[in-house]
Amino acid sequence: MAGSGSPCGACKFLRRKCVRGCIFAPYFCHEQGASHFSAIHKVFGASNVSKLLAHLPLSDRCEAAVTISYEAQARLQDPIYGCVSHIFALQQQVVNLQAQLAFLKDQAAQSLSMALL
Amino acid sequence: MAGSGSPCGACKFLRRKCVRGCIFAPYFCHEQGASHFSAIHKVFGASNVSKLLAHLPLSDRCEAAVTISYEAQARLQDPIYGCVSHIFALQQQVVNLQAQLAFLKDQAAQSLSMALL
Repeated sequence: MAGSGSPCGACKFLRRKCVRGCIFAPYFCHEQGASHFSAIHKVFGASNVSKLLAHLPLSDRCEAAVTISYEAQARLQDPIYGCVSHIFALQQQVVNLQAQLAFLKDQAAQSLSMALL
Repeated sequence: MAGSGSPCGACKFLRRKCVRGCIFAPYFCHEQGASHFSAIHKVFGASNVSKLLAHLPLSDRCEAAVTISYEAQARLQDPIYGCVSHIFALQQQVVNLQAQLAFLKDQAAQSLSMALL
């Protein structure tokens, strides 16, 4: 934690002094270690992430840090599509579910019309 | 285009000479202009994107440039969630569709058991 002696995970990775008020400290703890931040630095760059967090209200920064970390991890695992591969997979799942739903609705309508005959 | 006099969209934005073999030129044309690349530079940094593209086979770079561009635009539009908001929305849509599907299947099973009585 900033000011308590141990640098936060980000400053540990960046090998810099973790000052009081460090923008990363609340979201990248010392215990998570440097490896957690390395993906973020490699994909976005610590400076860009620092600026992005600084432009957000304090109450929104935790969520932003989580989603940035997720995007960074996904881009390292899949350098071509990153987390967009997850979007493609979900879009396909939606299409499949909609097709199943349309089929069942059609069947139900047919059963009803037969019952009414 | 690199070498033809006009810099590519990335080099135009970065105000640098667009050399033959420029890594960005095939994916960020002059006509798209500098604004298209500015989101990428702001979110990821030109240097990080250059390294990422350089590590991919030529055949995969176009898809990577498209998904990186998409992620960058999404992060500027929604600095807290970026394109992860799209993932959350799709996950919710999947949950809703699965619930509708389960309801219809249950109804169909009930209709069948009543018809068999």
